Amino acid sequence: MTNLLICRDHLDFVLYDMLDSVSLTQRERYADHSRETFDAAINAAQRLASQHFAPHNRLSDENEPEFDGQAVKTLPAVGEAVRAFAKGGFLAATHDYELGGMQLPITISQSCLALFRAANVGTSAYCFLTAANANLIRAFGTLEQKKRFLPSLLEGRWLGTMALTESDAGSSVPDLRSTATPLSDGRYSIKGQKIFISAGDHDISENIVHLVLARIAGAPPGARGLSLFIVPKFRVDDEGRVGESNDVALAGLIHKMGYRGTTSTMLSFGENDGCIGELIGEPGQGLRCMFTMMNEARIGVGMGATMLAYTGYRHALAYAKERRQGRLPGANDPHSPQVPIVEHADVRRMLLTQKAYAEGALSLCLVAARLADDEANHPDADERAEAALLLPLLIPVVKSWPARFGLATNDLAIQVHGGYGYTREYPVEQFYRDNRLNALHEGTHGIQAMDLLNRKVGMHNGQALERLHQRVMRTIEAAKASGNPKFAEHAVALNLSWQQLRETTRVLLDAIAQSPREGCANAAYYLDLFGHNVVAWIWLWQAQVAHAQITARPDLADFYLGKIAACDWFFHTELALTLPVHQLLQATNSSALGVEIDWL
Amino acid sequence: MTNLLICRDHLDFVLYDMLDSVSLTQRERYADHSRETFDAAINAAQRLASQHFAPHNRLSDENEPEFDGQAVKTLPAVGEAVRAFAKGGFLAATHDYELGGMQLPITISQSCLALFRAANVGTSAYCFLTAANANLIRAFGTLEQKKRFLPSLLEGRWLGTMALTESDAGSSVPDLRSTATPLSDGRYSIKGQKIFISAGDHDISENIVHLVLARIAGAPPGARGLSLFIVPKFRVDDEGRVGESNDVALAGLIHKMGYRGTTSTMLSFGENDGCIGELIGEPGQGLRCMFTMMNEARIGVGMGATMLAYTGYRHALAYAKERRQGRLPGANDPHSPQVPIVEHADVRRMLLTQKAYAEGALSLCLVAARLADDEANHPDADERAEAALLLPLLIPVVKSWPARFGLATNDLAIQVHGGYGYTREYPVEQFYRDNRLNALHEGTHGIQAMDLLNRKVGMHNGQALERLHQRVMRTIEAAKASGNPKFAEHAVALNLSWQQLRETTRVLLDAIAQSPREGCANAAYYLDLFGHNVVAWIWLWQAQVAHAQITARPDLADFYLGKIAACDWFFHTELALTLPVHQLLQATNSSALGVEIDWL
Repeated sequence: MTNLLICRDHLDFVLYDMLDSVSLTQRERYADHSRETFDAAINAAQRLASQHFAPHNRLSDENEPEFDGQAVKTLPAVGEAVRAFAKGGFLAATHDYELGGMQLPITISQSCLALFRAANVGTSAYCFLTAANANLIRAFGTLEQKKRFLPSLLEGRWLGTMALTESDAGSSVPDLRSTATPLSDGRYSIKGQKIFISAGDHDISENIVHLVLARIAGAPPGARGLSLFIVPKFRVDDEGRVGESNDVALAGLIHKMGYRGTTSTMLSFGENDGCIGELIGEPGQGLRCMFTMMNEARIGVGMGATMLAYTGYRHALAYAKERRQGRLPGANDPHSPQVPIVEHADVRRMLLTQKAYAEGALSLCLVAARLADDEANHPDADERAEAALLLPLLIPVVKSWPARFGLATNDLAIQVHGGYGYTREYPVEQFYRDNRLNALHEGTHGIQAMDLLNRKVGMHNGQALERLHQRVMRTIEAAKASGNPKFAEHAVALNLSWQQLRETTRVLLDAIAQSPREGCANAAYYLDLFGHNVVAWIWLWQAQVAHAQITARPDLADFYLGKIAACDWFFHTELALTLPVHQLLQATNSSALGVEIDWL
Repeated sequence: MTNLLICRDHLDFVLYDMLDSVSLTQRERYADHSRETFDAAINAAQRLASQHFAPHNRLSDENEPEFDGQAVKTLPAVGEAVRAFAKGGFLAATHDYELGGMQLPITISQSCLALFRAANVGTSAYCFLTAANANLIRAFGTLEQKKRFLPSLLEGRWLGTMALTESDAGSSVPDLRSTATPLSDGRYSIKGQKIFISAGDHDISENIVHLVLARIAGAPPGARGLSLFIVPKFRVDDEGRVGESNDVALAGLIHKMGYRGTTSTMLSFGENDGCIGELIGEPGQGLRCMFTMMNEARIGVGMGATMLAYTGYRHALAYAKERRQGRLPGANDPHSPQVPIVEHADVRRMLLTQKAYAEGALSLCLVAARLADDEANHPDADERAEAALLLPLLIPVVKSWPARFGLATNDLAIQVHGGYGYTREYPVEQFYRDNRLNALHEGTHGIQAMDLLNRKVGMHNGQALERLHQRVMRTIEAAKASGNPKFAEHAVALNLSWQQLRETTRVLLDAIAQSPREGCANAAYYLDLFGHNVVAWIWLWQAQVAHAQITARPDLADFYLGKIAACDWFFHTELALTLPVHQLLQATNSSALGVEIDWL
């Protein structure tokens, strides 16, 4: 049977041919690892994802968690899957051996997690939130907090959440109003209402550990007044045992278009003055603690968007090879058999587009994951410093490009299925609904655009962008030197495009210096443009690696030719179509700000 | 309260300022009409739509029609709305007075129907299918058939369907397998399975009249062997009275991503050899009969997509003026109040984009409706002939451009709402799900693209395109002569763009002459490009009319300035970004057909 979650050849190609992940095993932290242990982890993830996550993906879309007056009820399969995930060690995939972890590189752990996302993004969220929660406690908790909370979280007996958002503080988190009043024992009385808390209440685990952003009484308004608190649903004693209720009440369930398997809640903390939280990290450092985890969280969002796109593409491809409909132009004999729709030019185009988006996005995410590994433990200090520059620059792209073009991929998967694609008998409509979330959470598309243009490209005096440009230039030089006329042609196009991108960036940064509001008004276009330039680079990189591999692996020739074809298509179509965006952005009068509100 | 269904100023603007609809009253058929009667009909539609359609739009999304073992149950509100629509005379809006009709021009009736679509697209479908069914019987039925079926249909006591599609004959209708075997009395025994039959079964009306496409025993395969049959759910005697069951069985309900209020069915005809149909029209002319109605049906799809976009925009605009979040760049005092999000440049951009798409689409649809009126009864024979050329050319654009860019509009409406937009507490996510259907039904986007490129632009030796070009040139000349430098600048851009479009068309038609498959491989890009050129023309037309009105109606100055601003934006952004598409299309090697199936 076709593996509908991912093309393993593609994953192997990125991990081993492009990124040479085996070289990671030369680092001390990964010395016990090898290609075999990496593959074993990915195989285990694929098995668990297929057996425990994929089978109830539609079921949990159709049966949202419900409050029955006592508790929020989820499908039994969701809890079983979460426990299987924990038992498989994936909650602690990157953690130290002594914490029960697998000590895997982020590149490999993200590859494992990709399988779960492809199989069931809704159930996966419980796991990923818990892992993120545990990572934060590991990074900022006291020894005693780690002892009390980490084992239960990493074993999946307790699950975790991130509780930032309030109804009037969404994109503007620093405006939140939850308060923390010091108690005599050093702990805090927490009061406030949170909204959109994913996995905020359920019947899966013994306890739920909320990480709550709140303001200590007397702290200043805005971001620097925010602190972070561990607030369990049931109190946890000194020995880490679950005790009485901690006055965290479900105020309501939120019903969503997609991602329905993940319950989204409104939570009320301290309605009866009985909600106790403990500070984690320093007072006033709450947002900083959260943001430390942000890079990995945003790679996770990009990966989620990517895998929904990827599995949608796999489904559309399988369908297009089977479904027969119509005949080729010119073949009008009604007695002749209908052809598989993959023979129709427009269907072929839609599949190629999906391939270019989905595989481009996956490579992009794994390149970012590798930068996270390099930042953490590359043996060369210069390389660590470079990764520390490149990763934050790429993060808005990694988060946003797959969200946007992954959704476009899912849209095309529906279109390939025709009317059937619009029905709930086929999974592609769910992928589309699920994926629509990704341009909204963890910073909307607009916020990512501001982050890229208003912070990242100019930071360290443009150093990060300069380093990225150097990497792109190395790929361009290799393509020029390859002797392959197609690659040389793409190299010229990419070089021109990156020169324009730098000029456009310069013009916009000048405009921002004059007026941030005007200068950033078209930031969303800039983000998409930047993303296409990054992905074009990644496609040229992939095509060269594929070309080099063909003679070594003739059994995979079709696969490699597909890579080269997708690269050609991305350059001739997607990159070529971005050219006028530079003019649009460089024009100072092109923004919507000249339009009065009353004209709308 | 803001009218969230439509901006009446915009509707008035298109109907009276752009299209001078009052001039229609000089035609004999509309002699009893006046601006007052037109407005009265639109007001009545708005009242009915607000009172009977809008209130249960979410409810019927959440409570899909269900089969309870006996019948398909719909919400009582759906039936009440359909009866109110019929009682209001809208089923027969364009019909003759003697048939109980209002004898309204199509332009005005489509404007009325637009309100119902905006309020509740799911419930509206029952009405529109019945109207289309009745129109077909009126056009092709015998006197006796009209007498037996039309009154009950036009009064809404019976509802109608169109039953074309079969599971293996969707986009390829001519491959359908349903059969019609002649009986001794001149009627036919119908056998076959149909799928995706909207409104195919329900408890709303006394009877359901299916128009079924089937092949008479012995008829040739393919399109020319198809005939059309009236097949009621319950038999209808000579006096038009409802009798026994006609062996039409529900084989299953189809569950969709959106448009959930309209039940979609699999129907089994003649399982027990007891299904009797009567031929309508000539044998072998079934598809031709259906296609006679196609232009109006496709205007209807475009209108549906447009109105979902339009009401979504209205909702997003109202939300953006109310919702406060964040502060302007530079204003970082956390004590200062948060600003309405419409103040944020990116939100303003998203709203302006929605305005340009939604209002552009509505004008486009009404321009097409006016062409339908002109084709039917313009007093000047040359004008009738020109309308008969222009309308079929524009139909693929009218059907597809609003489907594609209307969906993009709904996507932006969600984005303006942030995380709230993804929840089912706000209506924008439903508009988005509902609208996704429109690129699929009544001919997919790909099929419309083939229709435009492979049939329409070349038909009558390119005459239709030539006439359209002349109309565009008249708008361009007026803009040049206006003395307004902005309009003159747009005129130059539009002229250049249309010259390129004609050249691109010529290149593609040459390529099709060589190889239809290769030549049409990028047809989908061509359709979008063509659509943008048409809508740019319509925006320049609108802007000029708006400019001319400002002095006459200073009270509407903001409205007119908004029109001009949206035109500027459409030219500077949307039209400008299409330029490289011409090169893409003119390149002969740019299609996906060079990619082997095994490479995907």
